This record gives sequence, structure tokens and C-alpha cells, in this order.
Amino acid sequence: MTDSSMMIGQGFDAHRFAPAGTGRPLWVAGLHWPVPEGADDAQAARYEGIEGDSDGDVAAHALIDALLSAAGLGDIGLLFGVGAEAHGAGMHGVDMLRETAAYLAAQGFTPTSASVVIVGNRPKIGARRDEAEAVLSEAVGCRVSVTATTTDHMGFTGRGEGIAAIANALVARED
Amino acid sequence: MTDSSMMIGQGFDAHRFAPAGTGRPLWVAGLHWPVPEGADDAQAARYEGIEGDSDGDVAAHALIDALLSAAGLGDIGLLFGVGAEAHGAGMHGVDMLRETAAYLAAQGFTPTSASVVIVGNRPKIGARRDEAEAVLSEAVGCRVSVTATTTDHMGFTGRGEGIAAIANALVARED
Amino acid sequence: MTDSSMMIGQGFDAHRFAPAGTGRPLWVAGLHWPVPEGADDAQAARYEGIEGDSDGDVAAHALIDALLSAAGLGDIGLLFGVGAEAHGAGMHGVDMLRETAAYLAAQGFTPTSASVVIVGNRPKIGARRDEAEAVLSEAVGCRVSVTATTTDHMGFTGRGEGIAAIANALVARED
Repeated sequence: MTDSSMMIGQGFDAHRFAPAGTGRPLWVAGLHWPVPEGADDAQAARYEGIEGDSDGDVAAHALIDALLSAAGLGDIGLLFGVGAEAHGAGMHGVDMLRETAAYLAAQGFTPTSASVVIVGNRPKIGARRDEAEAVLSEAVGCRVSVTATTTDHMGFTGRGEGIAAIANALVARED
Repeated sequence: MTDSSMMIGQGFDAHRFAPAGTGRPLWVAGLHWPVPEGADDAQAARYEGIEGDSDGDVAAHALIDALLSAAGLGDIGLLFGVGAEAHGAGMHGVDMLRETAAYLAAQGFTPTSASVVIVGNRPKIGARRDEAEAVLSEAVGCRVSVTATTTDHMGFTGRGEGIAAIANALVARED
Repeated sequence: MTDSSMMIGQGFDAHRFAPAGTGRPLWVAGLHWPVPEGADDAQAARYEGIEGDSDGDVAAHALIDALLSAAGLGDIGLLFGVGAEAHGAGMHGVDMLRETAAYLAAQGFTPTSASVVIVGNRPKIGARRDEAEAVLSEAVGCRVSVTATTTDHMGFTGRGEGIAAIANALVARED
């Protein structure tokens, strides 16, 4: 017997890091990554935030697209808009993710598992993986796994210009 | 109980845009994107096509690899060949996708859902998402979702050199 | 009915090729790719290995992260460590993959299918796809599909600086 009510989605997002000294808060994987106390300028630059209409949380954004596409409900641009006047402008990615899960539920879909790989030089996701997974899982309402890797100084993620995320998700349709 | 007849596949493809002025038709996500009436050269350049043996439709190609790998039936190169003499040469990606679905059916596999993310500056997929999803879903025989994003001017997709697509799929094996 | 015991994971990895002349053995997709007999320097350079603490097998590494994240058991860095003193240092990717599958089994998870796309100019995976799939499937204990593609000379994979892999996996939880 085939469980045809189980549907798959793919998500991807990439954003540019703000220039050093901008002082933009860094949010990734549903977490705030504050500049450590006593950091010098070089250390602080490693906590510079990500550009974007919202907080630039590529992990949350990729998960949103994975969930929406699994449910066949469009993508993040359709749900939250694009640009400074958009519904999603100024929202944290994890709050957009929570709203996405509520939207799926209202349309009769239940996320059953999701996963995201973060590709970038910083922040060091592994040190706070449990925390990130707890926050994202709570927002989505199912287990969300977080892994992270680098590209050995190759490409735009390797040169530290930006950060990317690839996500997938399974969603069940209530028949 | 575990539904072990449900199998997963991953697909990826990337191709280069043809140089401006080549006049190659642009096909992506199963759709033709014609140059708008009255477009000047700069506008027309945004509708320049994608290089490749076939029409260069990275979304269709990534979906083909996701479906073939889910079924354990090789990849697009094995099924359609490579180069000007290949079986797939000159075929539209969406027709290759339809042929892939027929091949899976003949081998006892049924696609149950699939999803593709298109990564590039152009064309603006969101404006014709419903149309793209309808065409691709008809070709595969199950729901196919389409999302799109950019890379904030980073990397080869961000510089407009080319376009990429990441796909996944679930396929059921008839036992 | 929804089979909520089926969980999905995403994996990604990228590594740099060692400089030509290093003589590092090339391992990808669980296979050794030896320099052909009688190869000249230019031909031999196409079989130069991949840098990394282990053998640099990006396909095996991406599969490991896909499996671990599907099971919610962390990532390759957590299981095998990072750096020359790590548990995984010097191990072949395929042996790390086998150890990962054993770890999942010990925690009550069973991989049911997995897939990996290798993105790079070399080696020519298609010529040994069946062999690669047999080795990786044996290591994981379920069907593992392997596809491969290039990026048309674009980006770090297209310039031949390195090689990347994107993987996904389904894992069943024993209830």
C-alpha cells in the first residue's frame, strides 16, 4: 500500500552578509547570535547580520519554501510579499515559519518532518544546534533537524560574502 | 508500520544563459518565455535562452534526475544521452519529463509528489507559477511544486551567468 | 492514514581538489578512482584527490548528514569530530557511512532510501554508477541512488576548484 497523502517539498535560500560595522543583528536558524562581550572589531565582524527584508534567516526561509512547496501552496514571496512594504518585512524568519505552519494547518496539511543544511563560514551552528532545532521544531510543529557545513573557502559562501540554506520537508494531507 | 515502498530522489542541474543577441528561445519550468512585444535590446536580453543539448530547462532536468534516482533507474544522461547526437537533443525538457514518467511507469514506479526550486535572476517564475506547476504536474502525473529564489547578486546565478535548479521527488514502487 | 514514522533529511558537502601533483588518492561515491595506466601529467591531474580530514568523499559525507538529520541525530561533525585528531580522520567516507547506519540502527532508526547528486567536472561518475550505487547501498543498508552533473564551467565546481554533493534520505523510526 502506498501512502499517497505524504508529500515532499524542496527549499533554498541565500542572502548576503551586511558589511562589517553595520551593526545589524545576526539571526540564523531561529536564533539571535549576539556579539560576544568584549569582542574586538574583527571578532564583532563575525556576528554582523544578514541583509534582507526580514531578518535574513536563510534557514527559516528555506524551510518555509520546503513546507509551502510540499503542500503545493506557493512560496515565501507569495505568502509574505517582497520589499519594504511586504507583510513579512521586519519579521523574524522563525515567526514567518510559525505563520507558515498555521497556514498549512488551515489548509488541511500537517508537517511531519523537515531538515535544513546551512552553508556558510559563520556563525558556528553546531555549538547551538540543539537550541536551534528546539526553536524551529516548536515553530513548525514537527521535528526539524539542522546541520551545517562550509565550502572550503570556495564560492560566495566560502569567501564569506553570504550564507545559503537547503531544506526539505514532508507534509501530510488530511484526506 | 513503515511504508517501505516510498522512495526518495534528489536532482540538480545548472546551465549557462546564451549570450545576449543569440535569439535562443527561453524555456524554463516547462514554459516558453517569449520576448515581450516592443521590448528594446536590454529588455530582450532578459529573455535570452539557456544553452544545452535540449532546451536547457534546468527545472525539468533536475526533476528528471530526482524521479530517476528515486526509482533507482540512473540519470538523465543514461536515459537521454549526451551531446548533439543524443536521443534528448532538441527535445523540450517537459517532453523529456513526460517520457521519464512513462519510463518509470513501465518499470513499476509511480511518482507521488515532486518539488523544484529554481535559482536565478530571470525569468520571474512567480508570475507564472500556476501555469508552470500545471504543465509540469501534467507531465509527471502527480503534483509538482515550483518555487524560485535569487542569490542576492552572489555566485554564478547572482551574476546572471546561468540558472540552477534543485529538485526532490517521492516515488512509490508497486509491490 | 499518515505514516508519521517516515522522516526526511537533507545533506550537503563541498571540498576542494588537492593541487595537481599532490598524488592524493581520489575517492568519491565510495570508490577509489586510480590514475589510469600510462596517463601523462595532464591526464593524471584529473585523478588528483580531494582535500579533507577523511578521504574528502563529498557524496558519502552528504549522505551521512542526510541520514543523521532524518533521524534527528546531529551531523557528521558531531559523530566523527573535526580536524586531524578526530575520530573520522583518515577514515574512508564509505566506512563512515557504514558506521552512521549502525549508529542509526542502535538508536532505532532504519534508512529506507537515499539519493545523492554529485556536482563537479570529474571524475566521470556515470561510467561507474552501478558500482558506486552497490557500494553505497551496501554501506547504508537500503537503496542509494547516485546521479552526477556539471555546472557548465560556472562557479567553483565549474572551474574545477572543487566538488560538491547534495543528498536526501528517508529514515523510518521503529515505534
